[in-house]
Amino acid sequence: MDELKPCTANSSPLTPLGFLERAATVYGDCPSIIYNNLIYTWSQTHRHVVSVVAPNIPAMYEAHFAIPFTGAILNNINTRLDARTISVLLQHSESKLVLVDYQSRNLVVEAISLFPSDIKCPPLVLIADHTDHDNDNKSSQTVDSNFCCTYESLVTKGDPNFKWIRPQNEWDPMILNYTSGTTSSPKGVVHCHRGIFVMTVDSLIDWSIPKQPVYLWTLPMFHANGWSYPWGMAAVGGTNVCLRKFDAAVIYIMIRQHGVTHMCGAPVVLNMISNLPRSEPLRNPVHILTAGAPPPAAVLFRTESLGFLVSHGYGLTETAGLVVSCAWKNKWNRLPATERARMKSRQGVRTVCFTEIDVIDSESGLSVSHDGASLGEIVFRGGSMMLGYLKDPNGTRKCMKDDGWFYTGDVGVIHADGYLEIKDRSKDVIISGGENLSSVEVESVLYTNPAVNEAAVVARPDEFWGETPCAFLSLKAELEKKPTEKEIIEYCRARLPRYMVPKTVVFKEELPKTSTGKIKKFELREMAKAMGKSKVSRM
Amino acid sequence: MDELKPCTANSSPLTPLGFLERAATVYGDCPSIIYNNLIYTWSQTHRHVVSVVAPNIPAMYEAHFAIPFTGAILNNINTRLDARTISVLLQHSESKLVLVDYQSRNLVVEAISLFPSDIKCPPLVLIADHTDHDNDNKSSQTVDSNFCCTYESLVTKGDPNFKWIRPQNEWDPMILNYTSGTTSSPKGVVHCHRGIFVMTVDSLIDWSIPKQPVYLWTLPMFHANGWSYPWGMAAVGGTNVCLRKFDAAVIYIMIRQHGVTHMCGAPVVLNMISNLPRSEPLRNPVHILTAGAPPPAAVLFRTESLGFLVSHGYGLTETAGLVVSCAWKNKWNRLPATERARMKSRQGVRTVCFTEIDVIDSESGLSVSHDGASLGEIVFRGGSMMLGYLKDPNGTRKCMKDDGWFYTGDVGVIHADGYLEIKDRSKDVIISGGENLSSVEVESVLYTNPAVNEAAVVARPDEFWGETPCAFLSLKAELEKKPTEKEIIEYCRARLPRYMVPKTVVFKEELPKTSTGKIKKFELREMAKAMGKSKVSRM
Repeated sequence: MDELKPCTANSSPLTPLGFLERAATVYGDCPSIIYNNLIYTWSQTHRHVVSVVAPNIPAMYEAHFAIPFTGAILNNINTRLDARTISVLLQHSESKLVLVDYQSRNLVVEAISLFPSDIKCPPLVLIADHTDHDNDNKSSQTVDSNFCCTYESLVTKGDPNFKWIRPQNEWDPMILNYTSGTTSSPKGVVHCHRGIFVMTVDSLIDWSIPKQPVYLWTLPMFHANGWSYPWGMAAVGGTNVCLRKFDAAVIYIMIRQHGVTHMCGAPVVLNMISNLPRSEPLRNPVHILTAGAPPPAAVLFRTESLGFLVSHGYGLTETAGLVVSCAWKNKWNRLPATERARMKSRQGVRTVCFTEIDVIDSESGLSVSHDGASLGEIVFRGGSMMLGYLKDPNGTRKCMKDDGWFYTGDVGVIHADGYLEIKDRSKDVIISGGENLSSVEVESVLYTNPAVNEAAVVARPDEFWGETPCAFLSLKAELEKKPTEKEIIEYCRARLPRYMVPKTVVFKEELPKTSTGKIKKFELREMAKAMGKSKVSRM
Repeated sequence: MDELKPCTANSSPLTPLGFLERAATVYGDCPSIIYNNLIYTWSQTHRHVVSVVAPNIPAMYEAHFAIPFTGAILNNINTRLDARTISVLLQHSESKLVLVDYQSRNLVVEAISLFPSDIKCPPLVLIADHTDHDNDNKSSQTVDSNFCCTYESLVTKGDPNFKWIRPQNEWDPMILNYTSGTTSSPKGVVHCHRGIFVMTVDSLIDWSIPKQPVYLWTLPMFHANGWSYPWGMAAVGGTNVCLRKFDAAVIYIMIRQHGVTHMCGAPVVLNMISNLPRSEPLRNPVHILTAGAPPPAAVLFRTESLGFLVSHGYGLTETAGLVVSCAWKNKWNRLPATERARMKSRQGVRTVCFTEIDVIDSESGLSVSHDGASLGEIVFRGGSMMLGYLKDPNGTRKCMKDDGWFYTGDVGVIHADGYLEIKDRSKDVIISGGENLSSVEVESVLYTNPAVNEAAVVARPDEFWGETPCAFLSLKAELEKKPTEKEIIEYCRARLPRYMVPKTVVFKEELPKTSTGKIKKFELREMAKAMGKSKVSRM
């Protein structure tokens, strides 16, 4: 069989870009994007695609095809970053063109002003978005000397017969995403066409997405490309309901107005929709996929009781989307509610198209036992792993090791049934009296307290134990009586082994967060350190 | 970005084999295979897999994992072939081991006896299948000197800790299928792991298969690996309802007994289930996917009115499964029934994961216009195209040309909406008075006649016109009054342009068919030729 080799007919590079072309044929007159009073069809989206970088508006969706269609690499930049960081990213990526939403114009103009004089600034294109009715300052949508033109004018000048450029090689880079990184400086994750293709089909199969779903964009597309669903929606001819900004009330309105069937979001979105006062149960079930942190059981309960069908998964910017998901078993429906929530808060098993996941003991380098208790580092191998970090061979080598695994830096266990559960970021593990202690586990108990809005637990240096858990809490707004530090500690004592109970509790108005909504644990860790060593008596 | 290259963590070869491992974790205690009174779970299937080649019984399903798990290549052989052909295939493929279902034992022993004396015969393993209650001759399940052992004894001797062999390279061959070929001698189609992976995920997305479907095996697995669904069912944790043989009554019993949700089959299966006297509408809808020939409108009607949801696609053994499918548009539901059937009988658009299809004019080499009338040869390019034909570089080169396309030998048109419709096999086109005439179009009119059971139209040489259409018909059994040749011609005249009306009509008890149920047009063509030239007056 040695003479049989790949040839052009069978080895055309895998890429998700062709999904759009097909959607224009099959779903040409069906809604592709809904935004305010604007409705695009799939055949229009196929014509409109040109380069853009911004928040969850139609131009942002189009960018996921438009930029790679030209052979260029799409780099989404988080609109919540500060000018200094944006400047660093634009320089590091050597961006040749920046498309800027009108609400971010001052931010990006400032970022450009921070360029050193010997570095050429990229031209800026303004996304005017005249359909945004909330905007009461129309002058901000007008081009000034900082911008070369508007996105809208570029689109009208486009060649409708432009034939998109197929990648020569499926390993060609297609996507660059800077990780917001809760603890370290941003890194440029590069993905190729093949990786994005594999991730996209994997996401469709794993979530059992039917044809023509109605997808609400509550997950920012600048966050790991909205976990690949911009491409996935083209594959199944879905309708993208776009939103510039949202809150719980808006989400419910959109669901009712457009018949939303699917949405994604960090657990904070679940928190939001389940905490809205007087939120009525849904008329039709809505599938919601969450990741980023295990959803606390209490939040899960409330969300599901309103009619949302919650799925839970796990992935990193480096994996292009979710590569572990908590594949649900029908028999679990018969479990008591708390047990059901416990099952659902586990990250789960590898998705269908991913190759392998494992948890490796850092000392022995061997797989940990499947006992739900032995901690180890979670490692990955599969088709949607990044190519590596841009201009950072050391960083790449440090996580993509010679043994063929990608090291996530996350710490987890594998249960007897083969399901993975994350216990912590390796840097968030608290080592108290030589005992490895998962901050996430303490947090999940704190979340069951009805007074707690948000909880984060970090290590505080301790004279005797080395480290002890220190809890930072924000409380719910509408409380009649706020709990004391002592009451919180009592609450944990009733539910946790002694060594896991926080020895310090700090109340805050709000916990510090990164631009993607993750709690900045490194900042809290600094605060805990600044408190000085705790002096806990021997237990 | 040049330093970023594939490495072990991100470039592990794509293969569908890992689907089983995952199914054993997620769906371990759910039914994987149902056969007679036997029920296997996904964790058992994971343990049981060893080599086998046979009809739609559990051992056959297991073979789709077992054989490639060992690093070997799976070659399914059609049980309906004759001993001479099987002997040729075993020699051509240089098979190292043959697993033989007990019902095919005499056939294969005879095939081996036809080996030339200087060629080493492969050892035979007998699949005894003691669960087959219909078998009244238990001695046929006993090993004699022709066989080295039974499949069942091999399984019990297996090492439960055997770790399956991952392909070193995703381009490594995994599957060898001999095409039954309606017109030419059998060819050995070779597929690699990557191609089967792409086909499998494509089939799941295109048919929107949910998790844990109940799949009835009405399509032979030896027919292009049951269009990839053996691997697909492992990916979604479905239940495989296996059947040694079936008729319409058995299909209805299985649907009711096991809650079947999905099944595939040639149009003859649709014909079968819709022609069963007193067939009651289904309690729950069953998805049925058909391909191989456009389903005649009348058959579609009857099938759908019973509660089946019919999808229609097109593929070849060379594409590993369906790569074109008639993606349905909701607005078509509002069309009159005949128009709906006409839309559904079109082959459609490329599936989500396939790269490109086109129809090319044989003279100019250019794409035909999208007018639904311009005939050309259908060409393919995509991830599930075969590597090539085994030991046949000329045959491979002839269809996989230097222009990067695979030439199907099928003739079709593209409609204004971008949907492909097959008009004929290129060798089945009838050229009458210089006019290209699609035999399939004439057949579809014949199928609307309530007396017609099966119809095939071929060219008959004609003194004046070059060729004229000659129709071979089998009539329904229960007819009170059989139509005459003249009545059939009148019937067509009322519904077809004059030049397309058959000039000759031949009634047969049954039309000759290949082992996979396709009508042997080449045989009918010979018969038509033997009738001598027709003498039709000018029209």
